[in-house]
Amino acid sequence: MGYTDKDWLAINTIRILAADATFNANSGHPGAPMGMAPVAHVLFNKFMKFNPKNPNWVNRDRFVLSNGHGCMLQYALLHLFGYALTLDDIKNFRRVDSITAGHPEAHDTPGVEVTTGPLGQGISNAVGLAMAQAHTAATFNKDGFPLIDNYTYCFLGDGCLMEGVSSETSSLAGHLQLGNLIAVYDDNHISIDGDTNCAFTEDVVKRYESYGWHVVIVDDGDNDLEGIEKAIKECQEVKNKPSLIKLKTTIGFGSLQQGTHSVHGSALKADDIKQLKQKFGFNPEQSFVVPQDVYDQYHKHAAEGAAAEEEWNKLFASYATKYKAEHDDLARRLTGALPEGWEKNLPVYTPADAAVASRKLSEIVLTKIEGILPELVGGSADLTGSNLTRWKGAVDFQPESTGLGTYAGRYIRFGVREHGMGAIMNGMAAYGTIIPYGGTFLNFVSYAAGAVRLAALSQVRQIWVATHDSIGLGEDGPTHQPIETLAHFRALPNCMVWRPADGNETSGAYYVALTSKHTPSIIALSRQNLPQLEGSTVEKTLKGGYVLHEAEGAQVTLVSTGSEVCICIDAVKELAEKHNIKARVVSIPCFEVFDAQSKEYRLSVLPDGIPSLSVEVMSTMGWERYTHEQFGLNRFGASGAYKDVYKKFEFTPEGVAKRAIATIDFWKDVPNIRSPINRAFQQII
Amino acid sequence: MGYTDKDWLAINTIRILAADATFNANSGHPGAPMGMAPVAHVLFNKFMKFNPKNPNWVNRDRFVLSNGHGCMLQYALLHLFGYALTLDDIKNFRRVDSITAGHPEAHDTPGVEVTTGPLGQGISNAVGLAMAQAHTAATFNKDGFPLIDNYTYCFLGDGCLMEGVSSETSSLAGHLQLGNLIAVYDDNHISIDGDTNCAFTEDVVKRYESYGWHVVIVDDGDNDLEGIEKAIKECQEVKNKPSLIKLKTTIGFGSLQQGTHSVHGSALKADDIKQLKQKFGFNPEQSFVVPQDVYDQYHKHAAEGAAAEEEWNKLFASYATKYKAEHDDLARRLTGALPEGWEKNLPVYTPADAAVASRKLSEIVLTKIEGILPELVGGSADLTGSNLTRWKGAVDFQPESTGLGTYAGRYIRFGVREHGMGAIMNGMAAYGTIIPYGGTFLNFVSYAAGAVRLAALSQVRQIWVATHDSIGLGEDGPTHQPIETLAHFRALPNCMVWRPADGNETSGAYYVALTSKHTPSIIALSRQNLPQLEGSTVEKTLKGGYVLHEAEGAQVTLVSTGSEVCICIDAVKELAEKHNIKARVVSIPCFEVFDAQSKEYRLSVLPDGIPSLSVEVMSTMGWERYTHEQFGLNRFGASGAYKDVYKKFEFTPEGVAKRAIATIDFWKDVPNIRSPINRAFQQII
Ligand SMILES: [Ca+2]
Ligand SMILES: [Ca+2]
Repeated sequence: MGYTDKDWLAINTIRILAADATFNANSGHPGAPMGMAPVAHVLFNKFMKFNPKNPNWVNRDRFVLSNGHGCMLQYALLHLFGYALTLDDIKNFRRVDSITAGHPEAHDTPGVEVTTGPLGQGISNAVGLAMAQAHTAATFNKDGFPLIDNYTYCFLGDGCLMEGVSSETSSLAGHLQLGNLIAVYDDNHISIDGDTNCAFTEDVVKRYESYGWHVVIVDDGDNDLEGIEKAIKECQEVKNKPSLIKLKTTIGFGSLQQGTHSVHGSALKADDIKQLKQKFGFNPEQSFVVPQDVYDQYHKHAAEGAAAEEEWNKLFASYATKYKAEHDDLARRLTGALPEGWEKNLPVYTPADAAVASRKLSEIVLTKIEGILPELVGGSADLTGSNLTRWKGAVDFQPESTGLGTYAGRYIRFGVREHGMGAIMNGMAAYGTIIPYGGTFLNFVSYAAGAVRLAALSQVRQIWVATHDSIGLGEDGPTHQPIETLAHFRALPNCMVWRPADGNETSGAYYVALTSKHTPSIIALSRQNLPQLEGSTVEKTLKGGYVLHEAEGAQVTLVSTGSEVCICIDAVKELAEKHNIKARVVSIPCFEVFDAQSKEYRLSVLPDGIPSLSVEVMSTMGWERYTHEQFGLNRFGASGAYKDVYKKFEFTPEGVAKRAIATIDFWKDVPNIRSPINRAFQQII
Repeated sequence: MGYTDKDWLAINTIRILAADATFNANSGHPGAPMGMAPVAHVLFNKFMKFNPKNPNWVNRDRFVLSNGHGCMLQYALLHLFGYALTLDDIKNFRRVDSITAGHPEAHDTPGVEVTTGPLGQGISNAVGLAMAQAHTAATFNKDGFPLIDNYTYCFLGDGCLMEGVSSETSSLAGHLQLGNLIAVYDDNHISIDGDTNCAFTEDVVKRYESYGWHVVIVDDGDNDLEGIEKAIKECQEVKNKPSLIKLKTTIGFGSLQQGTHSVHGSALKADDIKQLKQKFGFNPEQSFVVPQDVYDQYHKHAAEGAAAEEEWNKLFASYATKYKAEHDDLARRLTGALPEGWEKNLPVYTPADAAVASRKLSEIVLTKIEGILPELVGGSADLTGSNLTRWKGAVDFQPESTGLGTYAGRYIRFGVREHGMGAIMNGMAAYGTIIPYGGTFLNFVSYAAGAVRLAALSQVRQIWVATHDSIGLGEDGPTHQPIETLAHFRALPNCMVWRPADGNETSGAYYVALTSKHTPSIIALSRQNLPQLEGSTVEKTLKGGYVLHEAEGAQVTLVSTGSEVCICIDAVKELAEKHNIKARVVSIPCFEVFDAQSKEYRLSVLPDGIPSLSVEVMSTMGWERYTHEQFGLNRFGASGAYKDVYKKFEFTPEGVAKRAIATIDFWKDVPNIRSPINRAFQQII
């Protein structure tokens, strides 16, 4: 307590930096930073523990700006505290190749924990960060060694509250009793369309109480620094509930337009900035000014954070002497590397092994590797028995009081909340000690598209166990049968979409997914049984695509994925026996990985001089990149037993053979058929 | 009131039909139908007004089964009331080409209002149906002519409540005070993962009260028919709030496994069905039995519905004499046809007209046509000023008590709720009197993927005004810049993705979107200004793709969409002036529509003998179907002024020209270059 003019100087410095930067960029959102500068000042200086010189210290308090459009607030704070973000970076706000993008990007900007901007994501990431904290603490803390006790703080606005994803994750956070999560709701009554009265009149306090949150109201977020401090303290003391502070603020505080939506999303006018500076005792003719006194205050707190980390390092060293195995495990996890030799646990198969659904093969992988990969923590969006995501004997991640598990448990009951699950996985991965996975039907990964996109953009390792991956799910019908889903996520940069054809490919998919530190993976898995294929190996799978069945003098290449590969193998027999045609078969379980191979290799798989036909029982979009002709399903599926549905759409050896023959016929007059691998120029990537 | 054995006979008939059908299909969900049969019996017989012989009567009460996996409940009801759904159809439950799919599909099954199954959608569709009812009533009802006064009823389970989309739409429904909406929550404490205690412990009553709903609890949904009736009556009397009835039921009531998740998603065992039939006084050796008495009861109520419609028809005829214009407008709207000559209002442009952002061109279209198309009702997910979705002078759709508009208003403030907006549009369109549109950034249509997919599957006319459609949005950066979005929705069957290049193409896109009664459209629109192109016309646009710039002896075809078309036009000059190369330019604003043209036409646009290069500033996925080479952006964008961002990625006349030359070089040795329009065989569609 005991706030002085020095505090207000700092707060107003932040406000003016936000106004200057958005004016200079002629773009951006000054309103939220100006309104939230007071709470940010109090939170960061009085409560938060972090070391700007090491933004990766594991026990730092986490801060998430869910209303990411207010990023100038965060950039200003990072700069003032001495993170690697200079005043020049702030002058380059929203310019090409700056580290101060239009919304905070975790992989670009030191000190930004997660990438936000798309509304509702940040608060959901914060739930994931808090879950990861609770789990990591339960796993590693010992008597006298409170290694992990950080808080997760989050700022959010009405936009975040309106988005469904925040409802999903807030409900789950309440259920999970995440006492280390404290969110500050910027209740400024303004959204882009004007007053929130026009669309958002729910009782937020009551809603969050219904989720099981502790809620505090601060009536004067513009001036009452003591009240803000008291509220945060109160929330810290509530140990078995997440907390929401409803903070009434004035958007664009200090501007002539304060309290209106005109300060939300565009720069202040020059005159307005002048009066703002005068009002706050700054020179109206100068821009981007930080009084030395403000740097001093903030650097002092930064030094306290550095000291705290030093203390922690000592604690961790002492922990090593007593709990060597745990110490080494945590230290390893923080590097993102997997334990030496872990991959020996991946199952391998021969054609003599039984036919198994690839969702079951996925379960076998999880079961075999969970012991050596304790960082693997995941669950399902209420489809555990269908996704087969839970290894036998797994303990649920639950608060003890539920009697259903513990925080050390590694199996998460996400509920029917796919989008929330994705956003939580992003937060969990960002914490640094966990590799998250989540199960749902492939079709419903689309519900989580917003979160998957941010995983790809912000380079987060996570695994989607996406079962029931085609019309092969059968009776549930078109509402559940993906058609466009693979094309969607294949088109998403830095997202690996896998569709393994058998056991070896499933192991290979997991190998690449787990060892790709900066890429999310979606593994599409069948409901129906698939035979173990002659010619598949884990090693070949790692190339993303390979020749499964070679044939001297072949007239056509059949190119396929997942459950259709074995149909292609049968089509080879059909073609040979009934039509005296030789065909080769290529399996491409992952476009993204195959594309990364050398051109020479890719041409060996899809060579010149022979026409090719892709076979995949969904949208053909994207297959033209690899094959001359495409057999797919550019319509919705049908409800029925899976074999009947495959037959209806001619995804049978005969149906494939018929199209292979058409392909050969159609291309027979073309001399020197070019493989589609050949391209006139390189793509920008 | 006064329930007798006859009622229980009917209820148990429904339960046994559900058990028989799922057993016969060896697939499906008996639990919910068995648990909800009592409330369904009461609701349909005591309250609902409908005519099975005319499922399209506009003033019928609407019923939505949001927990769509319980569809055997709905199929049983439809059959018993005499809709065109036979006992044989029920025997064919979940079989290929039946009208009794694994989840209810509106376009396949008479009496099903909206397609459900993907959780959270149905309750959100119900909000849309109720909004449409409120709007249609406010527009057409007159003193003495209560033409439109139907209720919308919805059943939902915990899964629907957990999904974020239901939070979005329930919050909005409360704000909008939709008194005609009554939802019944099947509180059976079971989800697929087991007891809801494992992930869903929020206080649903409090949550719905926080949204402004009226909530009633019925403690014994298994037995207390009077209590159910009383609760529904109470909800009907609450005129200014939507209502939720929390109905405690036993899932799979009557089964030996009742109350457990084993009755949720798989058929009962043979023995269990036997004891069930015995318990309810049915012959255990017979299946698919409906006592005549049950038919009689249900047909009696159906006859009352038919009589009610007859009354209504008289009322409507008398309305015609007094309110001719309104009568004719409503009658026309119900056919789905637009008024004669409406298209004359679409603006046309010449190259002399100013450059305008296509989002602004969209605003001009809306402004010009709103007068003649009163069924056009829409809004934005809190981006009105950016999406430009509101014509000047539009009245907001709001309850009068807010002072912000009226139910007759046609502009909807959806709030930051993209997924909810999509699901609401599906419901509004299903009502039959409205063509809905909704605005957001193209990137955030992905948040609504689940709803867009159902629009396409269930053949709903709706328009997404998807602005800020590329890296051209500039400073907001990669979190907001779509890369994969067009590929995603282009891969979705029956979804038109438009990306108009100028004013005439924008008018053309709206023309096709508005006249396609059974297809949703996404119109991708630029933030930045675009010139009016020489060679574009509305008529050519209607073909989905056309030659914008022809050139005798051209060496390459540049194929493009939207904001990159004018760059291609400039590249033509660059190629001619600096490289003495002739190029032609093709614009393909909509793949789906272009694909529907004759092969002859498509080959005239993309002929043999000349290589082609696509130019679109996002994922190249899918362009291989039309062009030999592709220039796109298979990575995330960048934050900066839009011209700087375009330059960074070489989307300039020079950058296009460079790749056009590479294309010509690469293909120069290939004789008789084939257009990709040529294909070895027809796709299954
Ligand atoms: Ca706000
Ligand atoms: Ca349930």
